[in-house]
Amino acid sequence: MNHRTGNRPGRSVLSRALAVLGVFSSERPEHTITSISQATGLAPATTHRLVAELVEWGALERVARGRYRIGIRLWRVGALAPAARDLRDAALPFLQDLASATGHYVHLVVADGPHALFVERLPGRIEAAVRSQVGRRMPMHASGPGKVLLAHAPADLVAEVVARGLPRLASGTITDPAELAGALADIRTTGYCLSRDEMTEGASSVAAPVVGGSGQVVAAISVVLNSDSKNLQPLVPVVRVTAAAVSRALGAPGERFPVSERSR
Amino acid sequence: MNHRTGNRPGRSVLSRALAVLGVFSSERPEHTITSISQATGLAPATTHRLVAELVEWGALERVARGRYRIGIRLWRVGALAPAARDLRDAALPFLQDLASATGHYVHLVVADGPHALFVERLPGRIEAAVRSQVGRRMPMHASGPGKVLLAHAPADLVAEVVARGLPRLASGTITDPAELAGALADIRTTGYCLSRDEMTEGASSVAAPVVGGSGQVVAAISVVLNSDSKNLQPLVPVVRVTAAAVSRALGAPGERFPVSERSR
Repeated sequence: MNHRTGNRPGRSVLSRALAVLGVFSSERPEHTITSISQATGLAPATTHRLVAELVEWGALERVARGRYRIGIRLWRVGALAPAARDLRDAALPFLQDLASATGHYVHLVVADGPHALFVERLPGRIEAAVRSQVGRRMPMHASGPGKVLLAHAPADLVAEVVARGLPRLASGTITDPAELAGALADIRTTGYCLSRDEMTEGASSVAAPVVGGSGQVVAAISVVLNSDSKNLQPLVPVVRVTAAAVSRALGAPGERFPVSERSR
Repeated sequence: MNHRTGNRPGRSVLSRALAVLGVFSSERPEHTITSISQATGLAPATTHRLVAELVEWGALERVARGRYRIGIRLWRVGALAPAARDLRDAALPFLQDLASATGHYVHLVVADGPHALFVERLPGRIEAAVRSQVGRRMPMHASGPGKVLLAHAPADLVAEVVARGLPRLASGTITDPAELAGALADIRTTGYCLSRDEMTEGASSVAAPVVGGSGQVVAAISVVLNSDSKNLQPLVPVVRVTAAAVSRALGAPGERFPVSERSR
C-alpha cells in the first residue's frame, strides 16, 4: 500500500489508528514512526499525529531512540476480553496443577478466526522446544490444540483454513487436506490429539478440548514435551481430566468429553 | 459531559473512539450503545458508528442482547505491552514456585500512573479474601504491593497520590499522609511491606520490590493470606527471595534488595 492509498479520504481516521496498532506483533513489538508509516501506507505526518494521540491515551508508549511499544493502558483494556478474563480465570488453577503434576509446559489455546491463539502458557520444569508466547497466533493445522479446535469448528472454518493453504512448519506438519480431515475425525472419535514435530521440530504435544457453558468447544489445553519422548499416551488421561475440570468450572452442560459430535 | 460537549469539533475522531474503549472496566466489562453514549457524552449515532468500526477490527465484540465486550484482537495487541510480556514472562516461573511453596495467592503488581495495576494473579490452595483481578487497578496507598511501588517512586508521584486523597477501603487503610510517609520510609529501610486489612477486610499481605534492568523498582510481588494469621514475618524471606530472583532474571544490576534508596 503506498502513501496515497493509505491516506485516501475513504479511509476513516479510526481505521487508520487501528491500522497503526495492527502493525505491532509478537514478532515485531517495537516500531518507529518510519516503520509504522511504511507498514500502514500512511504518510509520516499522519502517522506522527496518530501515534502522538495514541501515546497520550496510553495505547502506545515511547521507549528509547524514537521507538514505540504497546502501552500498559491498552493491555489493561485488552485484559477485559472474555477469553482472557473468564476463560483464563476458570482455567488457571487447573493449568497450574497440570504443570505441577507433569512438569511439562502447559498451553491454553482458543480460536481467533482461522488461527490458534495462545491465551496462557505456564512454563514446565522439563525443558522442551516451545515456541509459544501468550498473545501469539499460529496456523490451526500445525499444532495439537489447533487441530482440537478445528475438529470441533464449523465446517466452513475448516474449509477456510484449507483454502488458506497448509504450510509446512516442521517435519510432521499435516499439509494434505485429506490427511487433515482424517486427523480431525480421529480427534472427534478419540477425544484427544497427539502431535509430533508439527509446529516446532523436536516438540510433541497432547491436547484435549474444553467445553464452555454453551456446550460448544471453546478452548484446547495441551502439554508440550520433547519429541524424543517415546510414548505420549500415558499423558492422555491427565490432559483430558484437566480439560474436563475446566469445562466443569465453565458450567459445561452434560458431556465434558466431546468425542463424537460430528463423527457419529 | 453532555452530548454537545462529547461531539464538539475539537474532539478528534480517534479520541472519541478511545473514549469508547475507556468506558469498559473490570467493574463493568459489558456495555450497550446507550450506556457507552451516556458514559462518553457522545451522540448515540456517533457512538453506533464508532462501535461498528471497533467491532469490525476486533477491538470490541457483540455479545447477547445488544451488549458489547472487549474483543480478542485488542487482548492480543495489548498482550504485547512490556509489563505484560517481558515482566510477566520473566516472573511467572518464580511466581509459580512461590504459590506452590507457600500455598498462598501470589500477585505481580506494577505502577500505572497513580494506581497499582495487577499484572498477574496466581490462585493459592489456601483461601483468602482476595479482590484482585488481572488488569484491575487499585489505589496505591491501600495495599502492600502498592505501597512498595510508592516507596520507590519519585516524590512527585507520592505527592500526586496524596493530593488525590487517601480513601479508606478497609479498617487498616492508611488515610493520613504523615502516616503514609512513615510507612514508605519503613519499606525503604526494611525492603519489604506487611499489610493488614488495608485493601480488603480480612486480607493481609507480604510484599517486596522487583528491580529491573535499569536498576529501578519496576514491580512488586506479594502473597495474600487471611488476617487471622497471627504472624506474617515468617513469609518475608520467601517473598524477598522470589522478588530478587525475578530481579535477577530481568538483569537487575548489583543490589537486588533495594532497602534504602531514599532513607539514607
